[in-house]
Amino acid sequence: VTKLPRGFKAHVANVGIKDETDDFCLVVCDDMAATAGVFTQSRFAGPSVAHSRKAVADGTARAIAIVSKNANVANGRAGVDDAEEIVRAIGRQVGCGASDVVLASTGVIGRPYPMDRIRRHLDAPLSFTVSDVEGCARAIMTTDTVMKVASATFGAATVVGFAKGVGMIEPDMATLIAVFLTDARMAPGELRPLFRSVMDRTFNCVSVDTDTSTSDTAVILASGAAGYVDRNDLTKALEEVALSLTKQVARDGEGATKLLEVHVDMARDDAQAKRVAKAIVNSPLVKTAVHGADPNWGRVAMAVGKCSADTDIHPDRCVIRFGDQELYPERTDEAGLERLTAYLRGAEVRIHVSLGTGLASATVWGCDLSAEYVRINGEYTT
Amino acid sequence: VTKLPRGFKAHVANVGIKDETDDFCLVVCDDMAATAGVFTQSRFAGPSVAHSRKAVADGTARAIAIVSKNANVANGRAGVDDAEEIVRAIGRQVGCGASDVVLASTGVIGRPYPMDRIRRHLDAPLSFTVSDVEGCARAIMTTDTVMKVASATFGAATVVGFAKGVGMIEPDMATLIAVFLTDARMAPGELRPLFRSVMDRTFNCVSVDTDTSTSDTAVILASGAAGYVDRNDLTKALEEVALSLTKQVARDGEGATKLLEVHVDMARDDAQAKRVAKAIVNSPLVKTAVHGADPNWGRVAMAVGKCSADTDIHPDRCVIRFGDQELYPERTDEAGLERLTAYLRGAEVRIHVSLGTGLASATVWGCDLSAEYVRINGEYTT
Repeated sequence: VTKLPRGFKAHVANVGIKDETDDFCLVVCDDMAATAGVFTQSRFAGPSVAHSRKAVADGTARAIAIVSKNANVANGRAGVDDAEEIVRAIGRQVGCGASDVVLASTGVIGRPYPMDRIRRHLDAPLSFTVSDVEGCARAIMTTDTVMKVASATFGAATVVGFAKGVGMIEPDMATLIAVFLTDARMAPGELRPLFRSVMDRTFNCVSVDTDTSTSDTAVILASGAAGYVDRNDLTKALEEVALSLTKQVARDGEGATKLLEVHVDMARDDAQAKRVAKAIVNSPLVKTAVHGADPNWGRVAMAVGKCSADTDIHPDRCVIRFGDQELYPERTDEAGLERLTAYLRGAEVRIHVSLGTGLASATVWGCDLSAEYVRINGEYTT
Repeated sequence: VTKLPRGFKAHVANVGIKDETDDFCLVVCDDMAATAGVFTQSRFAGPSVAHSRKAVADGTARAIAIVSKNANVANGRAGVDDAEEIVRAIGRQVGCGASDVVLASTGVIGRPYPMDRIRRHLDAPLSFTVSDVEGCARAIMTTDTVMKVASATFGAATVVGFAKGVGMIEPDMATLIAVFLTDARMAPGELRPLFRSVMDRTFNCVSVDTDTSTSDTAVILASGAAGYVDRNDLTKALEEVALSLTKQVARDGEGATKLLEVHVDMARDDAQAKRVAKAIVNSPLVKTAVHGADPNWGRVAMAVGKCSADTDIHPDRCVIRFGDQELYPERTDEAGLERLTAYLRGAEVRIHVSLGTGLASATVWGCDLSAEYVRINGEYTT
């Protein structure tokens, strides 16, 4: 069990969004917290994202609420009204304005919230009985098969994080839903760039299925109860927590049986490295080959090749490796293909491509593509 | 049975590339033909593509050879030598230079050709006993479950086409392997732009799995035996043939059970319309919902939304329809969702999105994503 950092308390409940499992999580800071957030770039972002973007803009917030199993997206004006009613009601409970309540939602698109049930829940007094991160993480799960929790300690302070998400995952300068809490003290103006750069190296480097959610939200709240900390210590701790959650999300991708890590180096710049790495980690042919432990390494060459705007990429300068085994340009024999097959049967597969166009690098994470993914997503709403 | 247009003859054979089925097809024109071609933009394009790009550059060619079941890609210098030896040998058989022989290959990446067997076949005299398009189409199939043939007649002339391809299909200003033959007479300088524009509206609008092949090749040969024709008549006939083949390819996508057509209109420009349409047709969540007949139309909103660079797209102006049923912004009830489910059970699903950002439009084709796709691609080489 991982305790919440000093200065935070939580309430979780089943409000009846969809079924009997927990679907509402509210984390409240004793005083005003420093905050920063990154959100989906989707053009169909819902009212939760629109509200939260404004709520974190001034760098302070008191609470974050997460409604799961309904995204409240594509619901028109009624959806906006519902979101506003919810943050006002939470503000009344907490004793702050609606603009100091961050709201995140996730789940089916295009269905209204069951507002009568939510209203009834928020009208009664709330009990803040949850003091562990696992209790929060469990309450925000939708089709996740495991909860995602991570923590790191530095000096007198701690950072904890919890996240959810298994499908519709290719965050775009944003993420699924991930909440980070720390008792470190940090000015909002410092916290914001620090948070954004860590998210860029972690959650913005994961893709389960190339589909960017309408609801991606990652937020950090810093209570300050542990006092001021070294900026680098917080960055390192936050990156450790975020990277752990990122890999937990990739490994629990819908239908996934393996974690796929793709590292591209010797690239012209970071953007090229990430573009090529994403092309590989997102290729359904690479993902299915990894799933079936088929030693069809040529599909990695295909995925590199389809980055056709990168005209400086040339087969003569590329090196393709699985684990520590080079497959191209060095030729492999039957024994080598058998070795590759055995490697692909493992629970983690690492593909490493050197482009030979420069000195930049990037690492991204994903998962294999299984028949189970198709089953899960062919019968989601029915 | 569709006869080859006047001026063409064909030879098909099993050369022993992989198994006992036909894997070699050679179509020869009696005289020099006008020609045009479009090819993959992949940075890992193989020697067949490199050679053919040069071969069609002067607007004339005598023959096209297609080797199936091995792409001869990522084979280094040896692969280039093999391709050159093959076109030289074909040139000797036909009585033309190697630069008048177009070569297309498709199949596994990173394996050398069995050159001893190919050499033995091309050293002996070839018999040109095939006079029908079906014979050619059958010979170039790899994992295709049906052959792809189409034809159109206009005045005294005909256009026929045959194609192959089921996976690694998102042609990028290019296509899989498609061959078009006509007895119409047309100057190469006129044929080239005409061919390119038809390919842009047909084969460049299909995607099975977002993976762009290293070997995409589409070529037209015009024997001229039917004399000069009206440019518009040829364009119309060629578009009819190419569109038919495009849909045949989409419908036979690996593991596919349905043809998916996505039409986007009221877009700012053609590029935006195609970008959004591709985002929808390529979304694994849309494809699996279509496969499972799950009326989860919200995923189309998600796919539109992830085109986040298109900042002029706004939910307030979008309309989403399946067939002729509007799902957004008009709300649907349970009966409407049942009607949608019934529609999704059909063999063809059409999604129609109006963006409200302008007057441009685009149509693209794809297919559903099934567990069978995963099975096929998890055990391709083994």
